[in-house]
Amino acid sequence: MELGFIGLGRMGAGMVERMAKRGVRVVAYNRSPEKTKRIARKGAIPAYGIDEMIGKLPKRRIVWTMLPAGQATDDMINEVLKHLKRGDILIDGANDFYENAERHDRICREKGVIFFDCGVSGGVWGLKNGYTLMIGGDKSHFKDIEPACRALAPKGGYAYFGPAGSGHFVKSVHNIVEYVYLQGLAEGVGLLSSFKHPIDLRKATSVWQPASVIRSWLLDLTTSALGKPDFSDIEPKIGSVTIEELERTKNAVGGYAPAFDVATAIRKDTSGNFVLGKRLIAAVRNEFGGHAVERSSSTASKRRNER
Amino acid sequence: MELGFIGLGRMGAGMVERMAKRGVRVVAYNRSPEKTKRIARKGAIPAYGIDEMIGKLPKRRIVWTMLPAGQATDDMINEVLKHLKRGDILIDGANDFYENAERHDRICREKGVIFFDCGVSGGVWGLKNGYTLMIGGDKSHFKDIEPACRALAPKGGYAYFGPAGSGHFVKSVHNIVEYVYLQGLAEGVGLLSSFKHPIDLRKATSVWQPASVIRSWLLDLTTSALGKPDFSDIEPKIGSVTIEELERTKNAVGGYAPAFDVATAIRKDTSGNFVLGKRLIAAVRNEFGGHAVERSSSTASKRRNER
Repeated sequence: MELGFIGLGRMGAGMVERMAKRGVRVVAYNRSPEKTKRIARKGAIPAYGIDEMIGKLPKRRIVWTMLPAGQATDDMINEVLKHLKRGDILIDGANDFYENAERHDRICREKGVIFFDCGVSGGVWGLKNGYTLMIGGDKSHFKDIEPACRALAPKGGYAYFGPAGSGHFVKSVHNIVEYVYLQGLAEGVGLLSSFKHPIDLRKATSVWQPASVIRSWLLDLTTSALGKPDFSDIEPKIGSVTIEELERTKNAVGGYAPAFDVATAIRKDTSGNFVLGKRLIAAVRNEFGGHAVERSSSTASKRRNER
Repeated sequence: MELGFIGLGRMGAGMVERMAKRGVRVVAYNRSPEKTKRIARKGAIPAYGIDEMIGKLPKRRIVWTMLPAGQATDDMINEVLKHLKRGDILIDGANDFYENAERHDRICREKGVIFFDCGVSGGVWGLKNGYTLMIGGDKSHFKDIEPACRALAPKGGYAYFGPAGSGHFVKSVHNIVEYVYLQGLAEGVGLLSSFKHPIDLRKATSVWQPASVIRSWLLDLTTSALGKPDFSDIEPKIGSVTIEELERTKNAVGGYAPAFDVATAIRKDTSGNFVLGKRLIAAVRNEFGGHAVERSSSTASKRRNER
């Protein structure tokens, strides 16, 4: 298996490294050459332009784009398509709205290029644990990209779901469930902190880990986040690049998801309410996805500790 | 370690069996003698009355009550206290509101009996995987009951949290998070089923299991429930014995838990909305807790399949 890979961010770089280590020949390109240089040391073949990347691929090209959804992905797909010919394959791994995948599929079809949308979950831990892949597109060609899927995913961790858009859709639903799980953990930790007797929050989340009904990876990461010495310095601001895409997904299927609605409202709420809960969600997102958190200055932090 | 144990329901019977297998001498009593007979075959010492149970215990008595919260637990604690003396220990493992544990603690103190409230999680799987124990009460005597905790819990799965009430409180918060997790899974499965292309629900939940961000025991059980041939016969009615206790807990701490509020509203809603989601929650509760589900008659089921 050989493929070109565009976009070496947190997710992309780990994916390329995992594939390279498992025998996939990956020609990797990133806009900023530093990341390309870095991935070359992890076993990928560096390319410092789209032309160079295409030139280093075999006759039948497979290209994977892994960029932020929206303009960046749209522009890159248009650019890459200029270099592809009938029968080539384009895989998009962005966290994109499924209707955009349908649009990308139409553009590809016009050129005879085969399109797959592939939702990817695993965050910064995917390099080690494997990436979950949720794939949509032309089933008759799925076998052509399956070796890359096997390299990326853990056992049982990839699946084909249906026509173009199905992969991004299933990934969006995964993220909707993730929002609700995080909201549940945030509410739980908030309630624990409101009790008349002081409850050791980390003792509670860690005692739940081995055998309780709510044992889960996000619970493990909650315990980990609560144990960091600077946890209370984290600003209660929950970033999210996917919130609009998830709301559009829910609405597009006429969906009913009231707990998800609560979770999105909390993410948008900039009031001083639910501070511990928001801080926890920001901290856990940092644990699994490497998503940036803001930290209060050390002065502010000292002042808080003195209170 | 020796103790008397009252209440051999789904949870209690498994707990007694696990303790007996791990070297705790358990004298077990249940109102209906059939369950007592059954547990005698699993290594416990049977008792067919409170008197008999007390008589078979050593001089310093430790008694564990494991009955439904409310009248059944209140009555039994009053009854058992007649047989206990200063320095004896009473542990209550019901899913009870923490203020009731505080009341039980006061009644016990009047007689010089040491009270512990112990929240227990693990459902029908606890016998095999161990039970999570969340304990409140008099810390200076905690070591006296710790051997039983070690026998019941998996490694790292029990902890002391604070004065009487703290154990039931932490267990209630665990259940609040559980409600939100289940609601999130139900919303996710509902959305998957609303997509324009048919999505294989079980394929989606199972591909999420090995490495996705939402991997969790409840997700595993969702996959298991969706795989049962009679899944679609399950009535969309979610039983819950704990809903009032959880709402009282949340309100008592002035708590903010809007996703939990959504989950409780869905459980109370008897309309024909969110049918698949309600069915899923009922089915998963059956998977982890052995909670009863109603099934439509086979005729109704056939009719549904013909549609």
